Amino acid sequence: MSDRYLNDFIPGQTFESPFMTVTREQIIDFARNFDPNPFHHDEQAAREAGYPTIIASGFHTLSLSFRLFFDLGLWSTAILPSPGLSGVKFMRPLFPGQKIRIRAEVLELIPSMSNPGQGLLRIRHDTLVDSGEVILVAECLHRLRRRG
Amino acid sequence: MSDRYLNDFIPGQTFESPFMTVTREQIIDFARNFDPNPFHHDEQAAREAGYPTIIASGFHTLSLSFRLFFDLGLWSTAILPSPGLSGVKFMRPLFPGQKIRIRAEVLELIPSMSNPGQGLLRIRHDTLVDSGEVILVAECLHRLRRRG
Repeated sequence: MSDRYLNDFIPGQTFESPFMTVTREQIIDFARNFDPNPFHHDEQAAREAGYPTIIASGFHTLSLSFRLFFDLGLWSTAILPSPGLSGVKFMRPLFPGQKIRIRAEVLELIPSMSNPGQGLLRIRHDTLVDSGEVILVAECLHRLRRRG
Repeated sequence: MSDRYLNDFIPGQTFESPFMTVTREQIIDFARNFDPNPFHHDEQAAREAGYPTIIASGFHTLSLSFRLFFDLGLWSTAILPSPGLSGVKFMRPLFPGQKIRIRAEVLELIPSMSNPGQGLLRIRHDTLVDSGEVILVAECLHRLRRRG
């Protein structure tokens, strides 16, 4: 893991993850825990909703996307708990067996006015399937310490 | 489960869930799968970050909040996949053993211009701990069929 701090980032920088395959079992398990809408775990319900098979919960796709982002290893000691995220768009469904990766772009560095030792990094996260289609976008705020 | 449709909702309506207790094991399990920042699964790292114990990933709190919302049983056949959410604010940490519930308020009904049989319901979701403090807010869009 590298050890970037807030002031090591530059707007426009992009980072890309490798692909991860999402299994049917993972989709069903997440749905049962957090989002039991039938089209997330029941084949017939998914087909009745117009899909060829079950589709992942958007909260699952979002959480997996964050895992891919985490595994980029952009920082270790600099990270502090995040204040939130916005603009989460579930653009296309995620099906069992599909591969996803993420592309993250640094949008803005926001130094804290009240705590000069830290600030926010605003990052756009795109989640893509292997055809290149974007299936989810989100803007995440990451709170990071400043170097020095 | 009741069977509300888009046109059964009125802006200003609120719904409240019962409490759910979140365990240490659930917090660690979610963190290991989706958000392995050390303060989500390692006691020492959490204390070094200034917390008395580990704190749940914000994606975990968000997903649990959605489960509480789902369990309100506001609809069954009317629901279609959601286009997204916004304004997710992680306001306070969620600790192991805490109880959470959600309060949902209908903000707006947005009939589809292109598909008169459906539309969007914009709902504000507040997640509260048993002291009454709000720990997470989000605005979710739910796509619903219209009755008739």
